[in-house]
Amino acid sequence: MDRVLQDMEKERETLQVWKERVGQELDSVVAFWMEHSHDQEHGGFFTCLGRNGQVYDHLKYVWLQGRQVWMYCRLYRTFERFRRADLLDAAKAGGEFLLHYARVAPPGKKCAFVLTRDGHPVKVQRTIFSECFYTMAMNELWKVTGETYYQKEAVEMMDQIVHWVREDPAGLGRPQLSGTLATEPMAVPMMLLSLVEQLGEEDEALTSKYAELGDWCAHRILQHVQKDGKAVLENVSEDGKELPGCLGRHQNPGHAIEAGWFLLQYARRKGDIKLRMHIIEKFLLLPFHSGWDPEHGGLFYFQDADGFCPTQLEWDMKLWWPHCEAMIASLMAYSENGDPALLKLFKQFRDPEFGEWFGYLKREGKVALSIKGGPFKGCFHVPRCLAMCEQILEVLLRHLG
Amino acid sequence: MDRVLQDMEKERETLQVWKERVGQELDSVVAFWMEHSHDQEHGGFFTCLGRNGQVYDHLKYVWLQGRQVWMYCRLYRTFERFRRADLLDAAKAGGEFLLHYARVAPPGKKCAFVLTRDGHPVKVQRTIFSECFYTMAMNELWKVTGETYYQKEAVEMMDQIVHWVREDPAGLGRPQLSGTLATEPMAVPMMLLSLVEQLGEEDEALTSKYAELGDWCAHRILQHVQKDGKAVLENVSEDGKELPGCLGRHQNPGHAIEAGWFLLQYARRKGDIKLRMHIIEKFLLLPFHSGWDPEHGGLFYFQDADGFCPTQLEWDMKLWWPHCEAMIASLMAYSENGDPALLKLFKQFRDPEFGEWFGYLKREGKVALSIKGGPFKGCFHVPRCLAMCEQILEVLLRHLG
Repeated sequence: MDRVLQDMEKERETLQVWKERVGQELDSVVAFWMEHSHDQEHGGFFTCLGRNGQVYDHLKYVWLQGRQVWMYCRLYRTFERFRRADLLDAAKAGGEFLLHYARVAPPGKKCAFVLTRDGHPVKVQRTIFSECFYTMAMNELWKVTGETYYQKEAVEMMDQIVHWVREDPAGLGRPQLSGTLATEPMAVPMMLLSLVEQLGEEDEALTSKYAELGDWCAHRILQHVQKDGKAVLENVSEDGKELPGCLGRHQNPGHAIEAGWFLLQYARRKGDIKLRMHIIEKFLLLPFHSGWDPEHGGLFYFQDADGFCPTQLEWDMKLWWPHCEAMIASLMAYSENGDPALLKLFKQFRDPEFGEWFGYLKREGKVALSIKGGPFKGCFHVPRCLAMCEQILEVLLRHLG
Repeated sequence: MDRVLQDMEKERETLQVWKERVGQELDSVVAFWMEHSHDQEHGGFFTCLGRNGQVYDHLKYVWLQGRQVWMYCRLYRTFERFRRADLLDAAKAGGEFLLHYARVAPPGKKCAFVLTRDGHPVKVQRTIFSECFYTMAMNELWKVTGETYYQKEAVEMMDQIVHWVREDPAGLGRPQLSGTLATEPMAVPMMLLSLVEQLGEEDEALTSKYAELGDWCAHRILQHVQKDGKAVLENVSEDGKELPGCLGRHQNPGHAIEAGWFLLQYARRKGDIKLRMHIIEKFLLLPFHSGWDPEHGGLFYFQDADGFCPTQLEWDMKLWWPHCEAMIASLMAYSENGDPALLKLFKQFRDPEFGEWFGYLKREGKVALSIKGGPFKGCFHVPRCLAMCEQILEVLLRHLG
């Protein structure tokens, strides 16, 4: 065997081992949520779960309800071993909970941020994100069940979101103040781009309906590359200019990397090779290197693009989700260019004793919060990452023969 | 010299040394803000200051504008060595900035949370706190200058705040939702009680006007002692019952201790010795012991009363202000009962190199954020603590002869 073949064989073995590991981890993570999070009484999911799965709060965060419905359906739809009735039943019960209770004042489309266990609204955020995860859940439920009322909900909500973002944000309830800069948080076009991808998947009519929106989102996200191409900034003006102060200098490396793989999917659909190279350079390599902690490893949560100390108390913590996004993004980039330096696996968050991942580590890597779920951590980033990595690895292995 | 006299002499010496240290520290802290925070162009204060005082953001947070005006006036009024024209001029310029720009839509009384450097509103909080610090600033400006328009502003704003809290919160803009529990955050009666103290100081008419309000506040704060007297909870129902979930179990030891010294001032005014003993036990010793980190020392920022892991990422950090409050409260309690175990001095936050205190340490005591000021840290807790401690020590030393 010559050197090249030897290397290929070694790489194939590595990918095979990873695929098995990732698959086992996915099984264990899904089992954790199946066992601990289902509310048999009211439908929907508990997400405030302690290290061993104990429910420490019954509140239901709408982001996480929508995400878990989406995740269950996606697993059911795309993995043979997850085509299980109990998974689909729980997803449907979550979907019905959202249909009944997510909207604060139906038929108005504004959704709550958090509900009581039995569905009364507790808090409303003046953003689009509850509605976005609602849309993802409904569209995926439709894809799995074929029930058209889910899809009607998804498309109507999507059109409302697009109206808020591109036409008139008044319905979100945020007051217009003379000192507020017209800021674009990168989360908004990112979220919309992922919805364009979600709704358009295997759906020509919606692909075509949202094609221009997808281009708009990609354009807007790309505008967040600033400082002569040396930084991805979380907030820029609507016409793509740097903003003053902490707001303008704010960086979230994990978020930039997540935007990277959203954009990479978009560029693949477009068949735009130049754009793919640009995305890998600016949204993956750049934030991965500048966001990496040279002392203890891991991605910082927040940074200041000019090197000032961030004002967020948690800025140097290592969160699970940026590392999940980095695993997906780097595996996607590896699929593009085959550079094995891009292969990243983060094991520091695992909890072999009770399953699922810890969400919040201190800078040094020690567990800071022992919870497995909370107001912002549910059944989403970890299983999405593992499922996507397993699928990407499978494709790669198939190509390698 | 017999033993008792020896002990008294030793104690007197300790207090004398402390008073000098605290006084020097106060001078250095005031000098830091005088040097770095004044906006000569627009009036008001920069509070986003790096370790060495460098301005890293020009936004003006209304809480901190009001607090700095109050602090400068209070120093001017009660310390001979701070009766300096430059201090008063800066306070007045800050007061004019607030008079011109704090209110979002005059003559409406709702104030912004943060303003641009030149006074345009950027964000509004749906709470009473910007308005409370506005009131403190105006009342103290009146006490120093005798200008009646300051006092008119203070009293009118106070009456508006009381209306929001006790009659109708609609003007704060928070939507009424069916799942939102009628929660009382301890901050509300605490803040009002401190305003009652502020407005009533050397003012018989206002003391009498707000006497019933003071009693109401004290009653409400005392309702936060829960779990058979074993915990001070941050949030309870309006009729003093425990609330479910994380919200109900939330504890903030520094806040309980701060409430303690507010209450102690109230109980002294009332001449209620039994209440004073209760306060020392429940609002000082209890949170001081249960909030103390047995491993690394210092007060935790947040805790869960039932020992669950808090969901706030910063829960185990050591913040400057709880330790400032603890210094004031314990010195006050020592004045009550003479127990030297109560004498606490926290030096860990000092920065002898550049002045002022670091605000945010990690659990282990290492500096987490190098900033000296930010959106929530201004010229307030540190100088208020040092000034009050110097004054209390002076009284104690006078009594010891």
